[in-house]
Amino acid sequence: MTEKIVYCEYFELLKNKCRGIYLDSEANITVKSPASMANVGPGFDIIGVALSHPNDILSIYIRKGKGDLEIQVEGEEVLQGKKNLVYFIAENFLKSCDVLQTSSIELKLKKGVPVSMGLGSSAASSVAIVEALRIALGIELSKRELILLSACGELYAAGALHYDNVSASYLGGMVLTEHNSMEFLKLPVLDRAFFSIIMPTSLSGREGKTMEARKLIPDKIGLRESIKQSSAFGKLISSLFLNDIKMFGEAINIDFIAEPYRKAMIPYYSELKKEALEIGALGFNIAGAGPSVFAVSDSEKKAEELGKSLVKYLQDRGISAKYLITRPSVNGVMEEEIIRSP
Amino acid sequence: MTEKIVYCEYFELLKNKCRGIYLDSEANITVKSPASMANVGPGFDIIGVALSHPNDILSIYIRKGKGDLEIQVEGEEVLQGKKNLVYFIAENFLKSCDVLQTSSIELKLKKGVPVSMGLGSSAASSVAIVEALRIALGIELSKRELILLSACGELYAAGALHYDNVSASYLGGMVLTEHNSMEFLKLPVLDRAFFSIIMPTSLSGREGKTMEARKLIPDKIGLRESIKQSSAFGKLISSLFLNDIKMFGEAINIDFIAEPYRKAMIPYYSELKKEALEIGALGFNIAGAGPSVFAVSDSEKKAEELGKSLVKYLQDRGISAKYLITRPSVNGVMEEEIIRSP
Repeated sequence: MTEKIVYCEYFELLKNKCRGIYLDSEANITVKSPASMANVGPGFDIIGVALSHPNDILSIYIRKGKGDLEIQVEGEEVLQGKKNLVYFIAENFLKSCDVLQTSSIELKLKKGVPVSMGLGSSAASSVAIVEALRIALGIELSKRELILLSACGELYAAGALHYDNVSASYLGGMVLTEHNSMEFLKLPVLDRAFFSIIMPTSLSGREGKTMEARKLIPDKIGLRESIKQSSAFGKLISSLFLNDIKMFGEAINIDFIAEPYRKAMIPYYSELKKEALEIGALGFNIAGAGPSVFAVSDSEKKAEELGKSLVKYLQDRGISAKYLITRPSVNGVMEEEIIRSP
Repeated sequence: MTEKIVYCEYFELLKNKCRGIYLDSEANITVKSPASMANVGPGFDIIGVALSHPNDILSIYIRKGKGDLEIQVEGEEVLQGKKNLVYFIAENFLKSCDVLQTSSIELKLKKGVPVSMGLGSSAASSVAIVEALRIALGIELSKRELILLSACGELYAAGALHYDNVSASYLGGMVLTEHNSMEFLKLPVLDRAFFSIIMPTSLSGREGKTMEARKLIPDKIGLRESIKQSSAFGKLISSLFLNDIKMFGEAINIDFIAEPYRKAMIPYYSELKKEALEIGALGFNIAGAGPSVFAVSDSEKKAEELGKSLVKYLQDRGISAKYLITRPSVNGVMEEEIIRSP
């Protein structure tokens, strides 16, 4: 097994704040961490939304021991054993806190979020392990610090620190990353939004996909396009506070940064968008870095119709695909079970 | 007098909707139209805010007559007589509606908004004449159409159609221009915001200033800067819905489009911003296309202190300046008096 060497500065946070914390009890802790969707139209790199499902489930079993760290990963598509980013975060986290000497820890990840599909799979796992260790160790860190730590998983998985998926998975709802101050603002969640997520399954599972997808985007953007992007983003933010699903749909149709370049990676993208809007989607765009796409509607029935029709559209053209219906989730990562035996 | 030839397509609106409206009564109509501030930090070309004062006051006197149109303009800094944009709009408006044959109209503009100072002077006048004529003629146009018509004044005054100042002056409050759909969204107004507007008077009154100020801005922007601009703009919009003046101040400090280039036109700009934030301003940036600058605070007392200190800072360095204290206004253009004699 080749080891991936990644240094994430946020582990220094733990060294400064948490050195010398010791585990003195046995414990079983299980957390559930939601999938998420970044970009959401005109919000490239600045917004993410937590989804009601799918989720990653992570359990951590702490026993007296000699500092062993073991991991078991369920899910064929995802990196197994010590290659999984959950192990990377746990190992660095525990080292930074000096906690492994008197305990042994076993991790069990049930991977529910599809990998490399644009649904924040690495973020869901990263947030899960950070939250589980926070609970296990009783560490007092701010939400902001916990998000920064979770972003170490993005650095490990995608080669860059992104905050849009991890902040959504941590906090729940739609979350704005304000890049100038590195703040995370949880925004209101639309009451009636349904997402039909279409996954072209033949394109899944490619490692390094997010990094490739970023390279497609030019490093300059026209002034007019930047203005139009910001104005659409302002409309998107307003639609959340106004709880206006129609306005939200119109806003998420627009993107001058990622969609024009990334759509080439997705077979029949433009045709699919046209089809979705004709069937009655309120909005349509790429999910995160793709290759999944999503349609927005205001009823479960319409969402099902969109899912079925768009999958059929792709299948009729020889592209294997499946869909899932999900909603924005008010909740982020949550504890499922905590059992301590002192 | 040289005539300025400007063609504005929105007058066609009137031809299609209002041809053949006739005036059959004598009337005196007076409207008050507020100053406004565009850009407001990261909102270049997409946001404007109406101000509680200063205002332009426009009166229109309609008498039976043979189609004469006269104008009287009070205010030394502004273009007089038929050169004034109010005349330009009125003449084209009335021609498009075919109303001059049986009436004569006299216009009187009391110019309250300082000219070429970044406070939406041309927008205030344009909105005033469009609103006064709308009332006089009883024309049914949507707010959106009235804003588009008012933008003809910007085309006349600054050589380009801008909507940020006219939409704010028309609707009141803070108004988002959504460029993709050309929609105007009125946003909530902050309860406690005070603006200290510092006007370097020696720089005022230059015709073509806005056009020059636009030429300073490059036609491409870095991807990172565009993302940071959008995230700050998202924060600005959120601050309005959350009524969070501190968040608003932090957001308006940020601008990667206009401020980095335009600040060179404003003597001691960077020093002034530093000084303002040290004295306790919550935010500071350029008002519209400048040369005025503005500081945000949450009390009248602090606003006065900022105004005095920043003017003194400039005066001590040989720059003549004055200040005014104003607030965001919920109201846009309003009728002051309507008298009809059938």
